[in-house]
Amino acid sequence: MAALDGLTVAVLGGTGPQGRGLVRRWAAAGIPVLVGSRDSGRAAETAAELAEATGGDVRGLANADAAAAGDVVIVSVPYDGHAELLRSLAGALAGKVVVDCVNPLGFDQQGAYALAVPDGSAAQEAAALLPDSIVVAAFHHVSAVILNDPAIPSVDTDVLVLGEGEHRDATDLVRALAEAIPGVRGVYAGRLRNAHQVEALTANLIAVNRRYKAHAGLRVTDL
Amino acid sequence: MAALDGLTVAVLGGTGPQGRGLVRRWAAAGIPVLVGSRDSGRAAETAAELAEATGGDVRGLANADAAAAGDVVIVSVPYDGHAELLRSLAGALAGKVVVDCVNPLGFDQQGAYALAVPDGSAAQEAAALLPDSIVVAAFHHVSAVILNDPAIPSVDTDVLVLGEGEHRDATDLVRALAEAIPGVRGVYAGRLRNAHQVEALTANLIAVNRRYKAHAGLRVTDL
Repeated sequence: MAALDGLTVAVLGGTGPQGRGLVRRWAAAGIPVLVGSRDSGRAAETAAELAEATGGDVRGLANADAAAAGDVVIVSVPYDGHAELLRSLAGALAGKVVVDCVNPLGFDQQGAYALAVPDGSAAQEAAALLPDSIVVAAFHHVSAVILNDPAIPSVDTDVLVLGEGEHRDATDLVRALAEAIPGVRGVYAGRLRNAHQVEALTANLIAVNRRYKAHAGLRVTDL
Repeated sequence: MAALDGLTVAVLGGTGPQGRGLVRRWAAAGIPVLVGSRDSGRAAETAAELAEATGGDVRGLANADAAAAGDVVIVSVPYDGHAELLRSLAGALAGKVVVDCVNPLGFDQQGAYALAVPDGSAAQEAAALLPDSIVVAAFHHVSAVILNDPAIPSVDTDVLVLGEGEHRDATDLVRALAEAIPGVRGVYAGRLRNAHQVEALTANLIAVNRRYKAHAGLRVTDL
């Protein structure tokens, strides 16, 4: 896709299940990808595995180096640690499109539930901590299991992409990143003030998965 | 569907766009329906129109009489007035399955947004006000425009159905009510503590509708 020509994507938390799955799919699509991790050794190991598996251009770096080197930066880390990581990277991320994929969830014996986030959502927290970046929220509902399964060539889900109306270029870029994954469609789904429910809906998909033994995703109809 | 045999469905707020659309579809499916409204005259008028349009068994009553006469009661009223109505009907609704479809949303020049609800969600508010009823949350995302359009025979959406795990009969009943509408599938999607984000996601669908000139619904994939 022309919008992605020449761009390198950095995935912070790229050794976790969700991050790793996105790296795999983008590498397979021919997009240069940087795997970021707290541990640069683990990042290099994951990058080598995924480069080998996909034939793609994948390198591993510490999160801070990946953030500095990436043109677009995906934040795919546990919510616990999210604020601290972004606060430390505000300088490196200035001027860039930062894509927050974080789902602030708690778990107990009744399953998953949405955590209260002081800023409203992880995406709004990112926007508050990164005043010089353009924050977009996306990739909350894509099953990590499916992303990581090379036997599933096409991923049957839409990616809801949220961002401010005046950042249309950024949300269009993230829609293009979503659509670089075969089967996926990127759908603009509102401003960051409406990110909370998109993040929290992951708890419902976890309930669906438990009831139906599925790896549920979402499609938006009538588009 | 066997689960629905002999049941009469009451729709409180049955003269509003969403309620009216549900009445139309259930009447067309052969389910006896009571249209409830603050104004029994308007209820009777809507009921007569929809009985004529569908050939179904539709009667109009004041909300309180519909609540008393229905076996299953759908709450499809504006959020403003929701608590007051349910508080007044707690006796009539005791022992019944009450299906809350309410989306607590605000609107401003930037579109729709989720309102903060003291109990967490309209569905949890209903459960708190109706301790002797079984509250299920469902039908938040079905387009009223599509429901009310007789030229669209099949509705391309899933209905997310939420309720407590110990009320499986009730959530299964509501899934059957959803599936009485051609094209619709009822999908169990978690407990009421996860209803907020399902209600609030309607704000995102409104943003989708605005961007894409659509009447968006949702399908859950991999089921």
